[in-house]
Amino acid sequence: MTKIAIQGEAASFHDIAASKFFNGSTRIYCDSFHETFKSLIDGEADYALIAIENSLYGSINEVYDLLRKQKVNIIGETYLRIEQCLIGFPDTDLSSVTDVFSHPVALAQCDEFLDNYLPHVSRNEQPDTAGSVEFVKEQNNKSFVAIAGREAAKHYGMTVLRESIETNKENYTRFVAISKDSSEPISGKANKTSMIITTGHKSGALHHALGAFVKQNINLTKLQSRPIIGKAWHYMFYVDVEASANEDRLDKAIDELTQQDCKVTILGSYPAGSLQDLNK
Amino acid sequence: MTKIAIQGEAASFHDIAASKFFNGSTRIYCDSFHETFKSLIDGEADYALIAIENSLYGSINEVYDLLRKQKVNIIGETYLRIEQCLIGFPDTDLSSVTDVFSHPVALAQCDEFLDNYLPHVSRNEQPDTAGSVEFVKEQNNKSFVAIAGREAAKHYGMTVLRESIETNKENYTRFVAISKDSSEPISGKANKTSMIITTGHKSGALHHALGAFVKQNINLTKLQSRPIIGKAWHYMFYVDVEASANEDRLDKAIDELTQQDCKVTILGSYPAGSLQDLNK
Repeated sequence: MTKIAIQGEAASFHDIAASKFFNGSTRIYCDSFHETFKSLIDGEADYALIAIENSLYGSINEVYDLLRKQKVNIIGETYLRIEQCLIGFPDTDLSSVTDVFSHPVALAQCDEFLDNYLPHVSRNEQPDTAGSVEFVKEQNNKSFVAIAGREAAKHYGMTVLRESIETNKENYTRFVAISKDSSEPISGKANKTSMIITTGHKSGALHHALGAFVKQNINLTKLQSRPIIGKAWHYMFYVDVEASANEDRLDKAIDELTQQDCKVTILGSYPAGSLQDLNK
Repeated sequence: MTKIAIQGEAASFHDIAASKFFNGSTRIYCDSFHETFKSLIDGEADYALIAIENSLYGSINEVYDLLRKQKVNIIGETYLRIEQCLIGFPDTDLSSVTDVFSHPVALAQCDEFLDNYLPHVSRNEQPDTAGSVEFVKEQNNKSFVAIAGREAAKHYGMTVLRESIETNKENYTRFVAISKDSSEPISGKANKTSMIITTGHKSGALHHALGAFVKQNINLTKLQSRPIIGKAWHYMFYVDVEASANEDRLDKAIDELTQQDCKVTILGSYPAGSLQDLNK
């Protein structure tokens, strides 16, 4: 079976996304994004599936940096609707809860619920949502609760105390599938390309760079600035565009960028995932 | 004495930055950025000083979101050179270390050192760099080490085992000083402005928006995209420009943005900090 490296544990959101995207695969569970990439680079995993941004939280900086540093190809993307639940013991009484445990992103996604219903409860960061459910179970302490998906409650035999506690229901995570050797999509035809653009450090450089895409009628779906290591306060830009790397118009846009003294690195060209897939 | 809310503990980088920026102030130590803002909003603190980006790690998403959600003004900025140290007991032997503890940003900043010199050591996230030194001290376990600044080692009477272990020496953190009521700089004259721009969701919108600044000869020093809550995959842009909110040319640029159907929110206008201050 195809082996997919993910960050997180069984029943985590990464686990669910990987089982949806890679049919009939097994998982290699990793403690960090760094270890997930390592599992792919070392040849232990066939592919990795990595969260790259969340519609509420934003981009995951560390993943952008790992994509740049490691020689890997983005070969696909998928979206998962994230529904956070408050999880504890069947007879946990919310009024006596002292501590909530979860991944910092999940805590941030539920900050209004926590502000309103558990204002005096201490928020404790854990490396994984599903792992925080396991932790609360192990502690066997009814003043502790976790935030995670309902699959994690089910997996560990714990109870969903409140569901849909995320601040906003438009809560999706975008995952990218990466490969060490292949740059070909697993299925389907590429129509989206991710790249890194480093502009010259001069006035208006980003405005002019974006003009290269406007001229070729290419839509941007994402622009993310990241610092350039070793040059404090210079930036590079991660850009996703609605065009395949095989299209002439993308070649022309990249030619113009090169003439503007921009450096362009293609991270991968792949079929765009669809938010419509979420309700399947 | 003026009371400054910070995230972190005594001898943390926030503590050092606050004591440099606000002469003769006392600190209110907070467990999270969320609590730091709360301390300011509730009137407990006179000001807050908050890390907003690091030259290696990039923007701190959570702080950008808090700046948007809370009605506060940026009234100043300052930079701190971040030098990370490996900290333990005087007789700690690196070859028998099993666990390293630090804030996730500090762990990320030292990833090459950890890859090269401590490849089999487990990386454990803690909410604070200085706090992780305290934790290692309390555990009294010589197979544990922490990553933090040398001030934290000194504060807790621990030993710097290796210094300057960050991957890149161009490691600066930018902090913003925020006020609940005042929008006036504490000292000096505003020459930099931070704002949020929400563009219409149409092709080329960001390119045209940046053109409004190019036309007025205004330099951008930062552009950070953030998701718009409730509209999956629509973005707003946090922009820093080299102009004061009192200047006509910034008024003209904002007028043009408004005509382009952009929504502009000013977060503050303040004197630009200088990297030259770092060696003082």
